[in-house]
Amino acid sequence: MADALTAETILGTTEDVLRRYGPAKATVVDVARALGVSHGSVYRHFPTKAALREAVTQRWLARAHSGLSDIAASDAPPVDRLRDWLAALFEAKRKKALGDPELFATFTVLVGESSAVVDAHIASMVDDLTMIIGDGVAANDFTAPNPELTAKAVFEATARFHDPAHAGSWSDPDVDTAFKAVVDLLVAGLRSRR
Amino acid sequence: MADALTAETILGTTEDVLRRYGPAKATVVDVARALGVSHGSVYRHFPTKAALREAVTQRWLARAHSGLSDIAASDAPPVDRLRDWLAALFEAKRKKALGDPELFATFTVLVGESSAVVDAHIASMVDDLTMIIGDGVAANDFTAPNPELTAKAVFEATARFHDPAHAGSWSDPDVDTAFKAVVDLLVAGLRSRR
Repeated sequence: MADALTAETILGTTEDVLRRYGPAKATVVDVARALGVSHGSVYRHFPTKAALREAVTQRWLARAHSGLSDIAASDAPPVDRLRDWLAALFEAKRKKALGDPELFATFTVLVGESSAVVDAHIASMVDDLTMIIGDGVAANDFTAPNPELTAKAVFEATARFHDPAHAGSWSDPDVDTAFKAVVDLLVAGLRSRR
Repeated sequence: MADALTAETILGTTEDVLRRYGPAKATVVDVARALGVSHGSVYRHFPTKAALREAVTQRWLARAHSGLSDIAASDAPPVDRLRDWLAALFEAKRKKALGDPELFATFTVLVGESSAVVDAHIASMVDDLTMIIGDGVAANDFTAPNPELTAKAVFEATARFHDPAHAGSWSDPDVDTAFKAVVDLLVAGLRSRR
């Protein structure tokens, strides 16, 4: 069994162990035991407990992101890509928060520990938005003297619909109306001739 | 002493007691003792512990709000009022969060207990924004088919700069740049001819 042990297998099991024991109690020994290997086998892939926790956090965050980059790089008009991208991010986050609240709470703790992982994740999302907004400027659809700064502003202005701190209100009956109103206002701002 | 006891005196002392004992431990008896009165004297003004906690929370939230309504109702052009109002809200919240972090943490707990108080506070802030945006529409400065819905969108889109959940990043070096970029985008959205 040990020779077939891949990083991906370890990370999948780590997620199960975190779900079962919670982020405060889960240890590398628990992960090794669940895999039926020695903890040395786990450490060969992830040299420290912190490295393992960071890798599993990154994997979990990347899952939310899957599909977003495809939307950003598609051939659709920039304004459609922007709306689709923001809606897909909100939908993915909401599904994770409401569909598996325990795992979401677990990863909210892990995310708080790994600011470098989170910063990289946010940077990759701002990159997507920068590409869309830059394309919109090139197509004369959007006005944005500094597409990266504007991409950050769009990301910040929609925090209420993707930052886990707001997850408690994502099942409110009027949250979709609120989301649409915010996106409409941001799109209008991007389309304006300043 | 007891005959001079006003609701305002009780609330001021309650805030001191909350600061000293923390929101989990502070009791009405502690407040009465600090005032040198019987707890019956406190209950004559606030019939339950919950009522006292709600009243002190409301008072604390209203302090952030002082000055905002004046900005909303001033004679300045709507776009200036909107920028000033959003900047004043961010500044007030930031001052409270960074200037007295312990009291801020205490009230973050209390705010979580009193959803009716918070809802009323948010409604009064959205009223301010609705007035400003409505005036902007009347002056032909803004486009907003439904000023109240747009006011809510402006409030949501700036959550990162007034919601206590984000207080941890309010001393970031680039937070003022981020704030300005968001407000610029929202103002451009309001000014656009859709």
